[in-house]
Amino acid sequence: MSLPRKQNLPLRDVRRYLEPGPIVLVSSRLGEATNIMTMGWHTMMEFTPALVGCVISAANHSFRMIREAGECVINLPTTKLADQAVRIGNTSGGEIDKFEAFGLTPLPARAVGAPLIGECHANFECRLYDDALVEKYNFFIFEVVRAQVAARPRHPQTLHYTGDGVFMVAGKIVSGRSLFRPGML
Amino acid sequence: MSLPRKQNLPLRDVRRYLEPGPIVLVSSRLGEATNIMTMGWHTMMEFTPALVGCVISAANHSFRMIREAGECVINLPTTKLADQAVRIGNTSGGEIDKFEAFGLTPLPARAVGAPLIGECHANFECRLYDDALVEKYNFFIFEVVRAQVAARPRHPQTLHYTGDGVFMVAGKIVSGRSLFRPGML
Repeated sequence: MSLPRKQNLPLRDVRRYLEPGPIVLVSSRLGEATNIMTMGWHTMMEFTPALVGCVISAANHSFRMIREAGECVINLPTTKLADQAVRIGNTSGGEIDKFEAFGLTPLPARAVGAPLIGECHANFECRLYDDALVEKYNFFIFEVVRAQVAARPRHPQTLHYTGDGVFMVAGKIVSGRSLFRPGML
Repeated sequence: MSLPRKQNLPLRDVRRYLEPGPIVLVSSRLGEATNIMTMGWHTMMEFTPALVGCVISAANHSFRMIREAGECVINLPTTKLADQAVRIGNTSGGEIDKFEAFGLTPLPARAVGAPLIGECHANFECRLYDDALVEKYNFFIFEVVRAQVAARPRHPQTLHYTGDGVFMVAGKIVSGRSLFRPGML
C-alpha cells in the first residue's frame, strides 16, 4: 500500500477531520516499544490551542505508555485500512508489534517521540495537555502540536463506528455555507 | 413534517447513535423559557452509566440554562432538519423562541424538564453528571437517563460537520463483524 504524500495543516483546522467522528488509530512510544490502538471516543475541545479529549481505557496497553510518555499521534485511517483497524483493536501491544503484525509503516514524527502511521490519511502529533479526568474517566486532553494531511482526496472515506461490528462510511458532502452567519462557520 | 414514532433504546446502546459523530440539537428549559442549540463537539465516555461529554460554549444562551437546570435533551437530527440545524446555530435563544421560529415540536420528556424535539430521529434525556471541567473548558459530562429512537430507518442519515459550512452525510454501512473478537464489539 502506497503512503500518501502529506502537507501541513493549520492546527485550527484539525476539527475538519476529527469533528465528524471517525475512528482513529493512536500510536505511541515508550522507550523502544511502540504501539497502536483503535479509538472511537474523542471530541474536539478547543480550536486554539487545538485540544482533543478522548477516552483511552486503562485496560489498554496504550494507556500506560501514553500516560508515561505524555505523547501520542492520532492517525486517521480510511476504508482501505478497515481490516487493520479492527485487527488492531482485537490485539494487545503487550503481545505483538502492531506495526509489524499489520504491515504498517512507522515514520518519525517531528514534535513527539511516537511514530506516525504512514498509511493513514492524516497524522496529528499530540502532547498530553491535561490529565485531570484520567483517573476518574480515563479521559485524556491532548494538544495537537503538528498536523499533516494528504492533499487528496479532500474528503476522505473515514470509518465511523456504530457498535456491534458495524461501521458507517463517510458519505456525500453537502454545503450549507450559504445559510450560515459568517461568524458561525 | 411528521413526527417519527419512537421506542425505548437500552441506555448502553446510546453509543450507536452518538459515537459516529453526528451534530446534535440540545434542548433545554429554565423556568418557562426553552431553548435549542446545535452542537458538534461531543463524545461517549462510558457505557453504564451512559455518559456523554460535550463542549457547550459559555457564549451560548444555552450554557447558563443547562448549567442552572442541570438537565438537557440531546436530540439527533437527520438531513431533513439540515436547514433548521444551521439556522438554530445562527440565532440566540435570548432573542427568539427557537421551537416556534423553526417550526419544531416540543414534546414532554419523562426524566427531565427540558422538552424533546419531536421531529428528531432520537431523543436522549440527560442529567448533568460532572461539572469538573465546565469552568476551564466549557466541558459538561451528562448521564443519559432515558433514550428513545425511531425504529426506522435503522441507520439514519445523520449530519457530520467538517467546518466551513460543509457537512458530511452518513454514508454506506459496512459490517466488520466477522473480524471482531467477540469481546471487542
